Amino acid sequence: MEVIIIRRIIIGVMGGAEFVTADEEKYAYQIGKMIALEGWVLLNGGKASGVMDASAKGARENGGITIGILPNDRNCFASRYIDIPIITGMGLARNVINVLSSNIIIALPGRAGTISEIALALNHGKQVILFRFEVGAWIYHYKDKNLVFFVNEVDGLRQLLREILN
Amino acid sequence: MEVIIIRRIIIGVMGGAEFVTADEEKYAYQIGKMIALEGWVLLNGGKASGVMDASAKGARENGGITIGILPNDRNCFASRYIDIPIITGMGLARNVINVLSSNIIIALPGRAGTISEIALALNHGKQVILFRFEVGAWIYHYKDKNLVFFVNEVDGLRQLLREILN
Amino acid sequence: MEVIIIRRIIIGVMGGAEFVTADEEKYAYQIGKMIALEGWVLLNGGKASGVMDASAKGARENGGITIGILPNDRNCFASRYIDIPIITGMGLARNVINVLSSNIIIALPGRAGTISEIALALNHGKQVILFRFEVGAWIYHYKDKNLVFFVNEVDGLRQLLREILN
Amino acid sequence: MEVIIIRRIIIGVMGGAEFVTADEEKYAYQIGKMIALEGWVLLNGGKASGVMDASAKGARENGGITIGILPNDRNCFASRYIDIPIITGMGLARNVINVLSSNIIIALPGRAGTISEIALALNHGKQVILFRFEVGAWIYHYKDKNLVFFVNEVDGLRQLLREILN
Repeated sequence: MEVIIIRRIIIGVMGGAEFVTADEEKYAYQIGKMIALEGWVLLNGGKASGVMDASAKGARENGGITIGILPNDRNCFASRYIDIPIITGMGLARNVINVLSSNIIIALPGRAGTISEIALALNHGKQVILFRFEVGAWIYHYKDKNLVFFVNEVDGLRQLLREILN
Repeated sequence: MEVIIIRRIIIGVMGGAEFVTADEEKYAYQIGKMIALEGWVLLNGGKASGVMDASAKGARENGGITIGILPNDRNCFASRYIDIPIITGMGLARNVINVLSSNIIIALPGRAGTISEIALALNHGKQVILFRFEVGAWIYHYKDKNLVFFVNEVDGLRQLLREILN
Repeated sequence: MEVIIIRRIIIGVMGGAEFVTADEEKYAYQIGKMIALEGWVLLNGGKASGVMDASAKGARENGGITIGILPNDRNCFASRYIDIPIITGMGLARNVINVLSSNIIIALPGRAGTISEIALALNHGKQVILFRFEVGAWIYHYKDKNLVFFVNEVDGLRQLLREILN
Repeated sequence: MEVIIIRRIIIGVMGGAEFVTADEEKYAYQIGKMIALEGWVLLNGGKASGVMDASAKGARENGGITIGILPNDRNCFASRYIDIPIITGMGLARNVINVLSSNIIIALPGRAGTISEIALALNHGKQVILFRFEVGAWIYHYKDKNLVFFVNEVDGLRQLLREILN
């Protein structure tokens, strides 16, 4: 028997563990939903809060598969919307795994944790899509290398991902 | 809409990156197949060689899901039978993630890499099933704590896993 | 015999692996020198280039002790001005160790690698002194928590460090 | 001014966090003392217990320099005999750093943690000296490659280290 193996695309979704504005939770959910409907796998930091929880919920409630890379050494902190918890026990060093394991990274607004993931991704030459998120002038060096994109709407995000990934 | 989420059990399969005896490849394949047929997820070190490749092939060709935790910072080294490559870029430090992310670990014969995974698992209080593998007298301290089991046949392994996991 | 143990303060110096302006190498050297003359230990990413090499040189040529946390799994990439190379084999995950092992972090201008270290430090509640470096508006959240300081001269940096560390 | 830099040899000392026999604490102290008197730097896991604490004490009370690679994300768990605590926040993944940062590893009796360090060292091609410690038949593969040595006395250990390192 021959098994055809088509490895699925993994989309990393980064963003705040706490929401700063009311809209962010809504966008995180919609982006997770969009990823699931496109047939992609969602990957994030796996915790039961903020963008991690909402984006996993959006993917999971729409038939998607969700992977969470957790900082703790036990999985009791995982979002209930994570199918596959990867338990690293490595604290913030897991942020490196988040970005290396994703084909591309979407970053919603967040604080230092999200900034670290954007910076680690770019340092590894990974593409990052900033969704309604301004991170400072240092990013333009990477925009000039076509590693950074700015998007404000979920429809535009879907369209951009299709273009990049196909 | 309410989504019922039942997180699947993850079985870690460790063992040599090269085969020492002719039987080991056969056993690795059969154990991967058994894990898939039981409805469990297989997790290993993800590389395209030895027990990693053969166990992933056994699971994948029988409808299972396979996760590979890779030491490299690119996924070009992953076995083609891995569905979900997790790219750590952390070298052997990924051995810790292998054991923390598994509900239970099966260890087939291997060398220092496999020994390190058994030892890291036991240090974290994880249960380890040694399949046709003698690792030395240091293991008896953990056997006395009911963390270590010795098994020689795939049927016995399936039975033991059912007892422990249910 | 009673041995009096006074653990020395460790100052992390982050910054670009390549120099962007001519002044940066001079400042990196002078900051390393100042750290040595104050009796503190210098810690950085250990590589033989940019701010890492120049700051270690400044400390080492003025009687200081230098620690380098290296991303590689061999020490052949270490700056010759590093006394104690710590070999992690973990790639950029070593950035977390850089900031956790430092009592306080000085960040000179750099790109994504330096930004990731600043962000990881702040995420862990560590204080960061930005030396002639603008990183974007996201930093003000942490400035308001007294975790971030802006300094433009080596004299002012010495004064600030003395105030914070004593 | 030309500064002559001679990087000092780093000796890793691994072993149990708890003592199994009364003699082990004495040997750990004496080995730390011997390392200091030879002018080498001692590196271990940094904790305030067992072989880590005793070997650091032996080195520190005899003029040596001691480095501790800690699993925690704060240094409050470090042995008071550690000069340079490296804070990893990575749990047992720090065992990889212990062995990569050492020129050679001495392993005193211990349990799974020590076994994992021996195995990780050998997997990286590092030489390991087993001091009064039997770890099982798997080690003979590496003994045949001249990576493993068995020693029972501190005098013999000093002699062997001098031969290997000079």
